[in-house]
Amino acid sequence: MKTLSDYMSLALDEAKNALIMDEVPVGAVVVKDDSIIAKAHNLTELNHDSISHAEILAIRGAQNELGDSNLSGCTMFVTLEPCHMCAGAILASRLDMVVFGAFDERLGSCFSRVDLLNGFYDTSIKCIGGIMEKECGQILSDYFKTKR
Amino acid sequence: MKTLSDYMSLALDEAKNALIMDEVPVGAVVVKDDSIIAKAHNLTELNHDSISHAEILAIRGAQNELGDSNLSGCTMFVTLEPCHMCAGAILASRLDMVVFGAFDERLGSCFSRVDLLNGFYDTSIKCIGGIMEKECGQILSDYFKTKR
Repeated sequence: MKTLSDYMSLALDEAKNALIMDEVPVGAVVVKDDSIIAKAHNLTELNHDSISHAEILAIRGAQNELGDSNLSGCTMFVTLEPCHMCAGAILASRLDMVVFGAFDERLGSCFSRVDLLNGFYDTSIKCIGGIMEKECGQILSDYFKTKR
Repeated sequence: MKTLSDYMSLALDEAKNALIMDEVPVGAVVVKDDSIIAKAHNLTELNHDSISHAEILAIRGAQNELGDSNLSGCTMFVTLEPCHMCAGAILASRLDMVVFGAFDERLGSCFSRVDLLNGFYDTSIKCIGGIMEKECGQILSDYFKTKR
């Protein structure tokens, strides 16, 4: 039986892969029936876009893998609290649950700035934050230190 | 000098293209310096995903065209009020302005359910709704009638 931290470790591995590519180190995995069906990390620099957040790419990967846009039965693990765009994408995908690592005071849209996932719109999605918070936050703060 | 309706007509043409593909008929164009730099329509059915909204594809197209994720100086025209995901994507892209056609009482996140674009987060983006509202709404209600 895997723990939340086991899956978050895999999301953190994705964040580390982002770091190698000089991308903002955020990683995500999507799990269904205890299997990883998608993993992704930020690719905004490579793609010159603001859409390619880890969550968006992981959702698209999971939907592609299942051949279905409905991700009910799936859980996303992501190293950083999703922003407004990603929270919206999560709602639209009908994921069962989101588990995130570090909180994002500036743009976090699952708890910190606003909770779009629970009752804000017609749907609600279970969400747990703060899993491996320290490690997930540290890789980000270390990255941004090098950019100053 | 083009009017808002001139550009909205082009977004509506995109919505009509979506209809031909049996996609939900929403279209969008991105304009910079009076030129169309991207146009797109919903592709959620074709792509089996919930990410491929017209706005997301138009933002990505514009960023690709400019080779820059920063869309300041650009305006998006979209036939339907953007949802939570797309409103978040619009904020992240730093578009100057959004002009939409029909209001979306269920998921509209620029006015109807919530206004994510103005002061909800740290940034604000100018937004005008209701341009060619009737035509933009009609194509959607006709489409959904055929699906019942």
